[in-house]
Amino acid sequence: RSGEMAKLTQLIDNEVFRAYATYTTIVLLKMMLMSLITAYFRITRKAFANAEDTASFGKGENAKKYLRTDPDVERVRRGHLNDLENIVPFLGIGLLYALSGPELYTALLHFRIFTGARIAHTFAYLIPLPQPGRGLSWAVGYAVTISMAYKVLKTALYL
Amino acid sequence: RSGEMAKLTQLIDNEVFRAYATYTTIVLLKMMLMSLITAYFRITRKAFANAEDTASFGKGENAKKYLRTDPDVERVRRGHLNDLENIVPFLGIGLLYALSGPELYTALLHFRIFTGARIAHTFAYLIPLPQPGRGLSWAVGYAVTISMAYKVLKTALYL
Amino acid sequence: RSGEMAKLTQLIDNEVFRAYATYTTIVLLKMMLMSLITAYFRITRKAFANAEDTASFGKGENAKKYLRTDPDVERVRRGHLNDLENIVPFLGIGLLYALSGPELYTALLHFRIFTGARIAHTFAYLIPLPQPGRGLSWAVGYAVTISMAYKVLKTALYL
Repeated sequence: RSGEMAKLTQLIDNEVFRAYATYTTIVLLKMMLMSLITAYFRITRKAFANAEDTASFGKGENAKKYLRTDPDVERVRRGHLNDLENIVPFLGIGLLYALSGPELYTALLHFRIFTGARIAHTFAYLIPLPQPGRGLSWAVGYAVTISMAYKVLKTALYL
Repeated sequence: RSGEMAKLTQLIDNEVFRAYATYTTIVLLKMMLMSLITAYFRITRKAFANAEDTASFGKGENAKKYLRTDPDVERVRRGHLNDLENIVPFLGIGLLYALSGPELYTALLHFRIFTGARIAHTFAYLIPLPQPGRGLSWAVGYAVTISMAYKVLKTALYL
Repeated sequence: RSGEMAKLTQLIDNEVFRAYATYTTIVLLKMMLMSLITAYFRITRKAFANAEDTASFGKGENAKKYLRTDPDVERVRRGHLNDLENIVPFLGIGLLYALSGPELYTALLHFRIFTGARIAHTFAYLIPLPQPGRGLSWAVGYAVTISMAYKVLKTALYL
């Protein structure tokens, strides 16, 4: 038992892997925050997607008028979906990258820039900032993921 | 070759990791089930998103009327998207948590409650149950993920 | 330090794991390509979701008319979401499968068929091919994931 545990925790003792664990957790928590912001706007704007969510506003037509879309809710939802589309590749490719033996300095650079770019993307989406603010923050995160993918394929390619 | 394999399977021999593998597979299979339920409602409600999917109903206007949204289809799709938003963080944070050396008992508690909460969330969404049924099941899964994230950051933090 | 690194890179030296790393990276890059195709159609069809994206077309009503949905844009977005729904399970279950000690030949078969099926699915969605082209390519990827899930549960089950 304890021998096995030691071998397992080895992974988490590696600095590159610890950096991956830290930044992945941060960026996933940031993504999870989008659910709370959506809920906040749904409640303050009274705009819901499900009949059972409006039951507390009364019965019939009175409740039905809150079954609607709201621009602020939709904006957060688009930001949330964009997170999924970009953080899922980071989760997978980042893990493989962390296991491909990169230099600690290079790995930290990748993880930090990606995390910073996604946080900037969220601010750019929600404030919203004029373009190309959101576009650039998206592109930076995208480029970091491509760079990690290149390293993974260079190290591990087995077709 | 066989030496390497032994070291690799080490991971899958660890009880915490096996529990993670089991519950992650269950919860991902549950998410995949949403695709089949969506297909079931699309076919029985005759509500499709793509013109090529309605071709078997004939040509022209006759087929075009099935290019529409249906409340039951949309409900399953919202449940599916909610799964993605919540199971992706579990997949990533749960893996890092499993590698951070938690007690087996505590890890099992986290994995079991998360899996139970997501199954309950699906029932609450599809039946549908009156609120706060769905809200509570969502919040329980969310809280379990936050708890695992806390353990990961406490063990591995490397900024 | 260097001892730890050796143990870590062990994983990436394993042939099954290298195959997983290769095909997962390819399929995630394919999914990321959907973002570029969406951007391409948004720009050429002039169909945007955010007011700040249309600012370069002028002010007021002139810009507002580009805040609209377009069938080509929506088609790519449906393909992208379908990727998320199917590649996320592959990412998680595939990793656990790669760690469950499958035969190299069997593992390669799973990874190659899944990757081929998802590439075929994208072509079927975007051309679009008549059904059951898209449906079949989706079902093949789905079946491969189920097969890997079965192997994971058979090897690792710990409830």
